Amino acid sequence: MSSHSWFDIPRGSHFSLANIPFGIISIPSSTPHVATAIGDYALDLAIFAANNGFSAISTIQPHQAVFSEPTLNAFAALGRPIHSVVRKYIQSVFAKDTPYPEVLKTNSRLQKQAIFPLKEVQTHLPFTIGDYTDFYAGLNHAYNVGVLFRGPANALQPNYKHLPVGYHGRASSVVVSGTPIRRPNGQILENPAAEHKVPVLSPCKKLDIELELGAFVCRANRMGEPIPIGEAEESLFGVVLMNDWSARDVQAWEYVPLGPFNAKNFGTSISAWVVLADALEPFLVKGLENDTQVLPYLQEKKAENVYDIKLQVDLKTSSGQSSTVCRTSSRNLLWSFPQMLTHHSITGCPLEVGDLLGSGTISGLEPSERGSLLEQTENGKVSIKLSGEEERKFLEDGDEVTITGVCRFDDDALVGFGDCVGRIEPALKL
Amino acid sequence: MSSHSWFDIPRGSHFSLANIPFGIISIPSSTPHVATAIGDYALDLAIFAANNGFSAISTIQPHQAVFSEPTLNAFAALGRPIHSVVRKYIQSVFAKDTPYPEVLKTNSRLQKQAIFPLKEVQTHLPFTIGDYTDFYAGLNHAYNVGVLFRGPANALQPNYKHLPVGYHGRASSVVVSGTPIRRPNGQILENPAAEHKVPVLSPCKKLDIELELGAFVCRANRMGEPIPIGEAEESLFGVVLMNDWSARDVQAWEYVPLGPFNAKNFGTSISAWVVLADALEPFLVKGLENDTQVLPYLQEKKAENVYDIKLQVDLKTSSGQSSTVCRTSSRNLLWSFPQMLTHHSITGCPLEVGDLLGSGTISGLEPSERGSLLEQTENGKVSIKLSGEEERKFLEDGDEVTITGVCRFDDDALVGFGDCVGRIEPALKL
Repeated sequence: MSSHSWFDIPRGSHFSLANIPFGIISIPSSTPHVATAIGDYALDLAIFAANNGFSAISTIQPHQAVFSEPTLNAFAALGRPIHSVVRKYIQSVFAKDTPYPEVLKTNSRLQKQAIFPLKEVQTHLPFTIGDYTDFYAGLNHAYNVGVLFRGPANALQPNYKHLPVGYHGRASSVVVSGTPIRRPNGQILENPAAEHKVPVLSPCKKLDIELELGAFVCRANRMGEPIPIGEAEESLFGVVLMNDWSARDVQAWEYVPLGPFNAKNFGTSISAWVVLADALEPFLVKGLENDTQVLPYLQEKKAENVYDIKLQVDLKTSSGQSSTVCRTSSRNLLWSFPQMLTHHSITGCPLEVGDLLGSGTISGLEPSERGSLLEQTENGKVSIKLSGEEERKFLEDGDEVTITGVCRFDDDALVGFGDCVGRIEPALKL
Repeated sequence: MSSHSWFDIPRGSHFSLANIPFGIISIPSSTPHVATAIGDYALDLAIFAANNGFSAISTIQPHQAVFSEPTLNAFAALGRPIHSVVRKYIQSVFAKDTPYPEVLKTNSRLQKQAIFPLKEVQTHLPFTIGDYTDFYAGLNHAYNVGVLFRGPANALQPNYKHLPVGYHGRASSVVVSGTPIRRPNGQILENPAAEHKVPVLSPCKKLDIELELGAFVCRANRMGEPIPIGEAEESLFGVVLMNDWSARDVQAWEYVPLGPFNAKNFGTSISAWVVLADALEPFLVKGLENDTQVLPYLQEKKAENVYDIKLQVDLKTSSGQSSTVCRTSSRNLLWSFPQMLTHHSITGCPLEVGDLLGSGTISGLEPSERGSLLEQTENGKVSIKLSGEEERKFLEDGDEVTITGVCRFDDDALVGFGDCVGRIEPALKL
């Protein structure tokens, strides 16, 4: 595939010709539509379709209505072979030596109608999310948190290397990048060590980030019929960056015996652009070594099953200064998305198009690679230093957290997600 | 309100004139519509509306399209004052001394068009459920389970009486009464006591029931804005019976540290008929005493905050013999649905119309009042006796479990839910 386009794609753009992610945009005068991002622009695929943009390719024509939908659900439901055709066709339309110059390259009318600067479009939640499940596949994170709460000898639970531990999350609280996150109120213990435990209702004092990837499901299984591991990849549409905001003090008090609840349901941010599994395939690598023999239903044929996406977390305080607080790679996972999906459905649980799977927090081995403040500050024992003499144990009001993630080809073309950003608003006064 | 109708409502019917529940039905030639149940019949409210059934009442006319929907979501979103008007109007249409005889009583054409024997209609899941949350408000259940796993001294966790413990469930696995439940496969430990824990993939061997109530949400709150306790009742549409099928062996292995997951996502059955909060209001009673001072945000004005619904669980084995395995009341809750809802949203979590809240398993104090086999058999240590020399530790293939629930007025009119039934199918061979 040519990495050269007739369209102006700046060096360092997340949205190179090798990417072609999908998302939902609107401009002030329009309803939300399916779009792709290329360089600094979005191509509205509903307008593109309505103006014969897909006329050169018969496979897509019967399905064009999906691009006028306000979510990616219908497009995703067409299945990976169609996603692949659409992506490759768009790549060919933007290629310098496009076989279809009349579609867009020499069609300045359609360029004006359908292409908008990313800065001027509003992005929307890409899917209607039926169910959201968050896993815990970041081995280093699970180990670090286990050490904090149970010590190194019992850091990982006995099940950890046998199955992708996960829990059901709150689908309604998943929001698109840019949505403000209000600091939650909740029950916390002001003195957790006290013998007599009496909670107070308070703004969360340990508001944290969780650096994750999310994957969207594009094929439903019937209730009662598990998705075999060999078919799991075909059920996965693509990937987003995810920040699973967490209220650590709420969590510590509430989570026994049924797991996190209110600590996790006030907001989960995802990137506006979903990068197709196809686009990420060149960046599949081996994940973390599992020294335990996993059961056959979780064994994948290929060893390269997780993505090597370079992830970064930046924290900008209300002073305006920004600091990078984490750099790591999404290869730091013990379980792949296909394994998570197959395990999720082994009971017969029905997965649906638009369901979201979270990887769990991703941390590398080094302190600077830890994907949560919980780990970086040892649950608030120590501070991390930021630019401009500032420091943090947990997030403060006005803090803006930005996650970025990119894969780089040898020719420096990038496959990235844009930003996943959220700014903390003060808690509601109750 | 007259308990006497011109319509034949058999003594002992769950669907007396005092009830008027709502559900979704279809007959072979129709799409699913909103309906109510009365006596042994269903009244299709879409057909009723299309034939001027609501012509006598101007409040409802602008909203009639909601009855042609395939779910109750749009009707529920109209709000409790409208539900109340619709219910009272339907009651008045069926009253012996109805002021609107021409609507149905003397309109045999519409009776034939819109009224169908319950035996001949197909019922459907009443709501599109965005999110499903299961609480743990059955104090006696929580205590019994706590004793089994942690002993009497630590049976209840320190948070239990301060907040309604809950966790996010799997919305896609909620099914309407009558849907078969396939025994799940999952990872279990064949020898949980062994020091070296190696799981196998196996059909669940500890398949259990959970006797619960469910409540549907009818008003959304914006993200970031909690629902005050004084407004929570207005956000609750009505109640269903619920069986939250549970795989105890899967749960025991998987649940640390993030709570139940696959043990709970293969099926949750609910009754087809949703009884309006209005219809249950006469049966509000004090719940279980909470000897802990709860925080002000959870304090309700009225002491009567839980329903006294007489609940019964029957188990019919493949031999055809049926045994009652539990009789109790839904008053055995420490927390009310308004308290659950308010706690759920205290962080700003957005609740949406059609969200389902489960009460948690309901057990009384006596062994015969325990709402799960886990409690009744002490996690499989002892058997319970059934009719015909049969016994059970957990559910076997072919077992059919039926939950019923009724409230009785002094004149013996009943407000009930019909059945919540599910039959266990053998596990899929993997």
